[in-house]
Amino acid sequence: MDFEEVVRKRRSIRKYKEEVFPEEKVMKALELAILAPNSSNVQTWNFHWVKSPDKKKKLVEACLNQSAARTASHLIAVTADGTAWRRSQKPLVNWVRSVNAPKIVIQYYEKLIPVTYTSGIFNLFAPFKWVTFFITGLFRPIMRGPVTNRDISDVAVKSAALACENFVLAITSLGGATCMMEGFDECRVKKLLKLNSSTRVVMVISVGYEGERGTWGPQFRLPLSEVIHIW
Amino acid sequence: MDFEEVVRKRRSIRKYKEEVFPEEKVMKALELAILAPNSSNVQTWNFHWVKSPDKKKKLVEACLNQSAARTASHLIAVTADGTAWRRSQKPLVNWVRSVNAPKIVIQYYEKLIPVTYTSGIFNLFAPFKWVTFFITGLFRPIMRGPVTNRDISDVAVKSAALACENFVLAITSLGGATCMMEGFDECRVKKLLKLNSSTRVVMVISVGYEGERGTWGPQFRLPLSEVIHIW
Repeated sequence: MDFEEVVRKRRSIRKYKEEVFPEEKVMKALELAILAPNSSNVQTWNFHWVKSPDKKKKLVEACLNQSAARTASHLIAVTADGTAWRRSQKPLVNWVRSVNAPKIVIQYYEKLIPVTYTSGIFNLFAPFKWVTFFITGLFRPIMRGPVTNRDISDVAVKSAALACENFVLAITSLGGATCMMEGFDECRVKKLLKLNSSTRVVMVISVGYEGERGTWGPQFRLPLSEVIHIW
Repeated sequence: MDFEEVVRKRRSIRKYKEEVFPEEKVMKALELAILAPNSSNVQTWNFHWVKSPDKKKKLVEACLNQSAARTASHLIAVTADGTAWRRSQKPLVNWVRSVNAPKIVIQYYEKLIPVTYTSGIFNLFAPFKWVTFFITGLFRPIMRGPVTNRDISDVAVKSAALACENFVLAITSLGGATCMMEGFDECRVKKLLKLNSSTRVVMVISVGYEGERGTWGPQFRLPLSEVIHIW
């Protein structure tokens, strides 16, 4: 499907048909999801596709039993974990070496990633980071973060969101419909998926075929002039 | 361009050609960007397209003078402001009324949005919110946030990221190339764009035509089995 058509067709669907959306297409959309750009390519995202009927029922409940979850063919919880750079650091070092990336890039992955993506227990390193950034920033431009563990996990959430957008567009291009849900009980979702404490549930995405009155009406957006500012 | 082709073609480009990417295409991509889904449709995002040569030079410096910024035709700073629900609440109430949305949805926009997206000065309401969610959560599933002002602005950042992904894909579909940059001095960008204290700079996106050695090599991703978990 043509790109613009996909973007214009995608809507948040509150009610799906009973017909089940094919699993192969969901997998295909997940493959396209992880091609999204992400912070330093550390890929701190995870996609939990809940298929088991028992667990799916519990996930629907955790999504406050909303019809966008209840009537969906598939539910995928997307999570972000600021500590997950640990699993990608070695493969990334090998990758930047194999493509002959500039030396500074290789050093970044070998030496700087662990410093950038760590703030210590109880944010022990945060004050040192903040002071360093603040003092250096007086003299020249410098990145001001991430400083705290929360900052680090925020970066991971942001990257995961990019993949989520790829995913919903991909499902649309494959003839399906989606709803990004932020209305869920994060504690219950984390318990259900046995997630560690550093993990945040970015959203739960439901997938299916659009049902009757799947949306409330035409899409509404503020005028461009309110959100686009030319300097 | 076909959707999958766009997703596979999009890469983070570190160096652009000198040829200038057309402004009309950037505007077209911005129009598609804001069709991204977003939290409660409150559209707390802003897109700052810095055209003036003087300001653009300063923005390049704030982007640590990296070549992805220095060689770009266009620079757009995308920001998120958790307090910006105020500008969309009235239009949204009118919209849900006009499409005959369920009563609960109309009430949500009329009454609940201001409560959900406010945490008071110094997070004064946060403890009450947290306790309410915690106690209710003992008995039934309930959303656990947003509690603090930081939580609220996190939601805004996440939504803005979705629009950013639409934007970079749209530019790709129009024959251009992009780089999402998080390597910038947020203090300097905020000062340059006269942003209020509640605004966060989500990323600066550069746009142009891909130059020679625009990427370091083929795209690298972890195996699907490491990031996709079937339950």
